[in-house]
Amino acid sequence: MGPPYQRHVFVCTNRRPDGHPKGCCATKGAEAVKDLLKAETKLRGLKGAVRVGSSGCLDTCEHGVSIVVYGAAEPPGGTWYERVTVQDVKEIIDEHLVGGRPVERLRMQPAPPAPKPAP
Amino acid sequence: MGPPYQRHVFVCTNRRPDGHPKGCCATKGAEAVKDLLKAETKLRGLKGAVRVGSSGCLDTCEHGVSIVVYGAAEPPGGTWYERVTVQDVKEIIDEHLVGGRPVERLRMQPAPPAPKPAP
Repeated sequence: MGPPYQRHVFVCTNRRPDGHPKGCCATKGAEAVKDLLKAETKLRGLKGAVRVGSSGCLDTCEHGVSIVVYGAAEPPGGTWYERVTVQDVKEIIDEHLVGGRPVERLRMQPAPPAPKPAP
Repeated sequence: MGPPYQRHVFVCTNRRPDGHPKGCCATKGAEAVKDLLKAETKLRGLKGAVRVGSSGCLDTCEHGVSIVVYGAAEPPGGTWYERVTVQDVKEIIDEHLVGGRPVERLRMQPAPPAPKPAP
């Protein structure tokens, strides 16, 4: 029995060495996204029902900044977002974390197939 | 649409300054627990179905090392564990991550009520 989080938001803040081919969420502004999500959910009195935190690599590096929302009010597989910026935070809070409607335009899309190796 | 993780394991590895009254999971061996969970799940070929990663503070500091398991095969509120050590890792993998039976003895218990202030 854990805390009764209705929505538990994990923002990938993983940092890889400069020049790593996979890149990382940290260099795409993940900390700022997480900090703003935390501050805004607190301001709106969502503490207790909504928890925002950081996570290590979610293994969706090409989608970064990657976010997954789990919790009692979410589908078991979670709700996944990609390429989130600080400009998206207000909409995620208003529509999803408060309104219960995931932001469709930010949903994680299937990764394109890897290019075939040259013959 | 995110990765199809059946079980997505978040190990709190949050570190607070020495002497902080809440303590933290980092000083209780959280990194070693996470590293062993990652290594063992990889060895058993669970990659793809099971994802192990670190998380920031889960706000269950008094239960540390704290772990929550979300994912498509979990209840939406997740499965929460407390006071996990490296000695518990094999049982968590065998019983829960492979067998689908949470380890009851490690389940997070409700926190005791805070002591009343002195009159």
